[in-house]
Amino acid sequence: MAGNSIGQLFRLTTFGESHGEAIGGIIDGCPAGLFLDENFIQSELDRRKPGQSKIVTQRKESDNVRWLSGIFEGKTTGAPLGFVIGNDDQKPKDYEALKNIYRPSHADYTYDAKYGFRDYRGGGRSSARETAARVAGGAVAKLLLQHAGVSISAYVSRVGNIELQHSYHELNLKLTETNLVRCPDAAIAEAMIRLIEETRKAGDSVGGVISCVVKGVPAGWGEPVFDKLHADIGKAVLSINAVKGFEFGTGFAAAAMSGSQHNDAFVRLPDGTIGTATNHSGGIQGGISNGADIYFNVAFKPVATIMRRQKTIDVNAIPVEMMGRGRHDPCVVPRAVPIVEAMTALVLADHYLRHRTTRL
Amino acid sequence: MAGNSIGQLFRLTTFGESHGEAIGGIIDGCPAGLFLDENFIQSELDRRKPGQSKIVTQRKESDNVRWLSGIFEGKTTGAPLGFVIGNDDQKPKDYEALKNIYRPSHADYTYDAKYGFRDYRGGGRSSARETAARVAGGAVAKLLLQHAGVSISAYVSRVGNIELQHSYHELNLKLTETNLVRCPDAAIAEAMIRLIEETRKAGDSVGGVISCVVKGVPAGWGEPVFDKLHADIGKAVLSINAVKGFEFGTGFAAAAMSGSQHNDAFVRLPDGTIGTATNHSGGIQGGISNGADIYFNVAFKPVATIMRRQKTIDVNAIPVEMMGRGRHDPCVVPRAVPIVEAMTALVLADHYLRHRTTRL
Amino acid sequence: MAGNSIGQLFRLTTFGESHGEAIGGIIDGCPAGLFLDENFIQSELDRRKPGQSKIVTQRKESDNVRWLSGIFEGKTTGAPLGFVIGNDDQKPKDYEALKNIYRPSHADYTYDAKYGFRDYRGGGRSSARETAARVAGGAVAKLLLQHAGVSISAYVSRVGNIELQHSYHELNLKLTETNLVRCPDAAIAEAMIRLIEETRKAGDSVGGVISCVVKGVPAGWGEPVFDKLHADIGKAVLSINAVKGFEFGTGFAAAAMSGSQHNDAFVRLPDGTIGTATNHSGGIQGGISNGADIYFNVAFKPVATIMRRQKTIDVNAIPVEMMGRGRHDPCVVPRAVPIVEAMTALVLADHYLRHRTTRL
Amino acid sequence: MAGNSIGQLFRLTTFGESHGEAIGGIIDGCPAGLFLDENFIQSELDRRKPGQSKIVTQRKESDNVRWLSGIFEGKTTGAPLGFVIGNDDQKPKDYEALKNIYRPSHADYTYDAKYGFRDYRGGGRSSARETAARVAGGAVAKLLLQHAGVSISAYVSRVGNIELQHSYHELNLKLTETNLVRCPDAAIAEAMIRLIEETRKAGDSVGGVISCVVKGVPAGWGEPVFDKLHADIGKAVLSINAVKGFEFGTGFAAAAMSGSQHNDAFVRLPDGTIGTATNHSGGIQGGISNGADIYFNVAFKPVATIMRRQKTIDVNAIPVEMMGRGRHDPCVVPRAVPIVEAMTALVLADHYLRHRTTRL
Repeated sequence: MAGNSIGQLFRLTTFGESHGEAIGGIIDGCPAGLFLDENFIQSELDRRKPGQSKIVTQRKESDNVRWLSGIFEGKTTGAPLGFVIGNDDQKPKDYEALKNIYRPSHADYTYDAKYGFRDYRGGGRSSARETAARVAGGAVAKLLLQHAGVSISAYVSRVGNIELQHSYHELNLKLTETNLVRCPDAAIAEAMIRLIEETRKAGDSVGGVISCVVKGVPAGWGEPVFDKLHADIGKAVLSINAVKGFEFGTGFAAAAMSGSQHNDAFVRLPDGTIGTATNHSGGIQGGISNGADIYFNVAFKPVATIMRRQKTIDVNAIPVEMMGRGRHDPCVVPRAVPIVEAMTALVLADHYLRHRTTRL
Repeated sequence: MAGNSIGQLFRLTTFGESHGEAIGGIIDGCPAGLFLDENFIQSELDRRKPGQSKIVTQRKESDNVRWLSGIFEGKTTGAPLGFVIGNDDQKPKDYEALKNIYRPSHADYTYDAKYGFRDYRGGGRSSARETAARVAGGAVAKLLLQHAGVSISAYVSRVGNIELQHSYHELNLKLTETNLVRCPDAAIAEAMIRLIEETRKAGDSVGGVISCVVKGVPAGWGEPVFDKLHADIGKAVLSINAVKGFEFGTGFAAAAMSGSQHNDAFVRLPDGTIGTATNHSGGIQGGISNGADIYFNVAFKPVATIMRRQKTIDVNAIPVEMMGRGRHDPCVVPRAVPIVEAMTALVLADHYLRHRTTRL
Repeated sequence: MAGNSIGQLFRLTTFGESHGEAIGGIIDGCPAGLFLDENFIQSELDRRKPGQSKIVTQRKESDNVRWLSGIFEGKTTGAPLGFVIGNDDQKPKDYEALKNIYRPSHADYTYDAKYGFRDYRGGGRSSARETAARVAGGAVAKLLLQHAGVSISAYVSRVGNIELQHSYHELNLKLTETNLVRCPDAAIAEAMIRLIEETRKAGDSVGGVISCVVKGVPAGWGEPVFDKLHADIGKAVLSINAVKGFEFGTGFAAAAMSGSQHNDAFVRLPDGTIGTATNHSGGIQGGISNGADIYFNVAFKPVATIMRRQKTIDVNAIPVEMMGRGRHDPCVVPRAVPIVEAMTALVLADHYLRHRTTRL
Repeated sequence: MAGNSIGQLFRLTTFGESHGEAIGGIIDGCPAGLFLDENFIQSELDRRKPGQSKIVTQRKESDNVRWLSGIFEGKTTGAPLGFVIGNDDQKPKDYEALKNIYRPSHADYTYDAKYGFRDYRGGGRSSARETAARVAGGAVAKLLLQHAGVSISAYVSRVGNIELQHSYHELNLKLTETNLVRCPDAAIAEAMIRLIEETRKAGDSVGGVISCVVKGVPAGWGEPVFDKLHADIGKAVLSINAVKGFEFGTGFAAAAMSGSQHNDAFVRLPDGTIGTATNHSGGIQGGISNGADIYFNVAFKPVATIMRRQKTIDVNAIPVEMMGRGRHDPCVVPRAVPIVEAMTALVLADHYLRHRTTRL
């Protein structure tokens, strides 16, 4: 009820702050018999981890996951999967100076308002570190989804004013991991990286957009009313730090369209199955997957910590000036690509299992 | 688990299809002692009901709510509130002709794919009729929120290409209900109404955007990780039929901004309390309300039913041509205003109660 | 969260008090394609209804269930099943005299303590009327379980000091419905009926025990830790009004046994499958069904309403004398037999669906 | 959904098997500001741990809890409390010989039936080791309940045929911890210890009963329908390994009583508050606490592992003889006393928080 769990049947519960001994979580409801490919899981965590390139935070975390339960001879047993990820690089001193200050657009003030006090060392649960547990859980979800033939590919489609104009159909998504910013267009990627570097030099930060495509979801996943498939995906990605918006299929552009433009005619596909001539629906109709690609965009605001002098107040409402310290990302989207994928995987794994109880 | 409930502590569960005897629901978890103002509740339903003006569907439904339990001498007792809303105007014949056809961008195909068959009379749970139960539940949530000093105001900010350029600060939201389209700017409203009428005459439909502002939420509501306040609001409004996107605060525009532009400096307000100089955060920081106004936009696609000849296939994947029948909205946003408010109210009522268990 | 729902995947939510227009509920999560045999469902309700014989309350309720949604051409569609049961025989005047009195061993005082006030007309949610919705939900669960080959048979094994000495193996459970008290041994049944009649004439009430046997549950249902199959059954039957105890398999007698007596050796059954030589485990080991019969006992206290002068206090803590009024059961167990079966069915239907997600 | 969590608002999720690196859990929903007295928590674990006396298993586990999150300067922050308890004394070789055998009255067979295979090293989730995490969670719940003035005292009231005849009123519960068997009557305790020692020498095991008394719960906790306070307590204790029965208040004895004997007359207490003259109700009426002591009994079967030759079958249904190995408790009840208290505390802490949302 305090919101540290996600999913109904495939359920991740997480704990941990950046400054403690470890963060971690429990995955409950993973079916028995799944080969838990620890190399794959670690590779997912490595895509998120700090210090991986010059355009991300230089904090050093090895982000190694230790699995404590639920595995026998490499396979899940049906028991809950407990895991911990050690915090290697705690520098609580970075935060001591800020303990009485409400940093602009951080959660310091809201935590005090909610809980009556706060653990000022590292942002508590609002720290980006918390997302490592999401990626670990999402990696297990991805392994489960592989059995259903589902693949998830996110990429950076915008950094500040530099925007990828092509839709995912026109891109080679295999190129996403070939550059630091995770944009599948090499030229645009170059410009994005340059912008991020300039932004960092200016002591500032910049926002961006991540796009995501899911292939292989069969028709029939999702629930028709409150737990529409896109509503659950939307909630999951909106729960990632710094996310400000979510749209799927035609998204906000649909507001300007007419029904005669927007409707996706059903057609018989060459293989005899049913598909749609266009996919404005984004693979989901009435909250339920229709077998077409699911695609959506996620907007991220610029990181709140900047290396510039800012005005704000302290806990006594006295005006102060402050300056960001520590090692932070000038732009969150390159490292958020695996997080968006993880959250999507968690939702889809859950609906994959939920769908099993639909029919007699 | 089949997704017909929303909320953890303040929980609405709904049932019903448009063609049956009645739809309805159960509100569980409403605190005891709330005066259940049935006039207010009915007035909310009247804002949603069909036939209310020339720009909406001419279906006739009185949408009277009958409360069956949980009330004693006008006040809630703490017992669940059961309610039914009769279906007056069932015309199943309208649908008989379509029983074997997969209408473009409807849920016919996905229902068949999910359940193995479908009740073709009126769209089943994907019918807009289902939203009447949401509005009834949301009206009770609004009554509860009044005790916490919270008010919710949604309005139409876009229809097709006609867009309200002013932010909510510059508008008089009391004017929203003074015109058919529920846009607080009279001139823009006029243009929107004209566009909707032209669209209907052309046998087409058109999308739109609803904006929503919530005032009076104190700092501290919402949970910091998966159940961030905006994530729960996002899911709730994304679960409304035809919604394609959600953004709060600066939303997608944040992607193009720098941190130095976007950060909201904390300030001491004239009354001695803490506030922010700007509100790019949209009243939520780290998933928790900060006391400022919460505001967001919701994108709606054009209604799928249009009065034009369209190509599609039947259940045997044979190409057919079809034409919309029945009485449908050419644009869903005017009637969706109270629905957006209702879903927002349900989420906030839930977090209001959840917040009560936060501290020792 | 206010506890008006039961089940995770097969979920019943109920509403209603005895004095209102109707009670009812919503069944969410029933798989699509189940033939909803309304005659069977009604026959289950008839087993519970008041006025069915001389040894139960003479209140008159027809207890007809009206199904409002989720059914198409006789089969469940996967949508929620909404239902209402009208209250025919409301006599609120019976209660007017008691509005300020805390009846001994009723919930009057605890409701006031919990909610701050109470609806004194008919006991609110603590009325036995609430169980009609349980039986309706349980009847649908039974229909689902028939597909899995599961049958549930409860019977009265004790009324006051008259106790059935035989275990269920030695009884013909088809005789349960052949007498008013629902005890499968005709001679014992006769004695029980006599005791109940004498008790009523004496203006008193008497307790009893219901035993229940479930056949056909395959090995593998139930969860190993908190949601052990017997723990969920135990909770479900303990939630029935007047229940004071639950034991399964050897139950309390196990406390006096040694392991060498109690252990159930596994054996190869004649058909080549695996079974146990004895069944002290009551069909459940480690919280999971083992394929043997599941059996358990449920203890009921005597009904609190008696037709005798009793001392108690009023809402101002002033001593008063009161006398039961209205039409009440002198012994609850005959009518509780279908309720015990219904609660058991709800739990098993839920675990039947939950089990579907156990393996890859 | 796989049943590794308990509680709605105060929620414990656990993981771990006896043979792995560690077991552990996450407590979510503990209010912020609670002083987490680690000494007290450890003392609770020490009451459960193996090797504490001559009448329990001689396995050596230090059972030290390591808290990984959610604490700042000794107090809970409102963030989830993650914890691990290392497994010191793994002897997987003890189990190797049994990997293909279905031990009588163990969960070996049901695990295979459910999951398709099993981790045979130490019983998996059915190991008694799992209860250490329950005690850790329950200890935090107890700390929370102390703020509400609630105390929980369990004790052994029966071992085999040796039964404590006195009710809890006549006992000095402070003596419970003064002897190895945790029975507050020294003479009876002596006899129980002797019986357990004889049983062990005979290579056998023996069942027992634990009684529990809760003082200080104010009137008003619990929910009136499915989540009755005693139903939730019943489920929680029935989920403990080896439990076969639960009864509260008069329990099974109520079946033989008349209403005129059983009813608890309300009286004005000397301090002006409302109480009852007797407490057959066991402190709960209509599912809601009435302010009187809550008391109940829990029946435990004899431990399945005995040091005697037993017949059973192997995984291929071939008859085999086997003999218990390893270090096991001849009687589970002395060590189960803190577990019963822990499960009770978890339920009460949850309802304490749930009750906060009952009224406007």
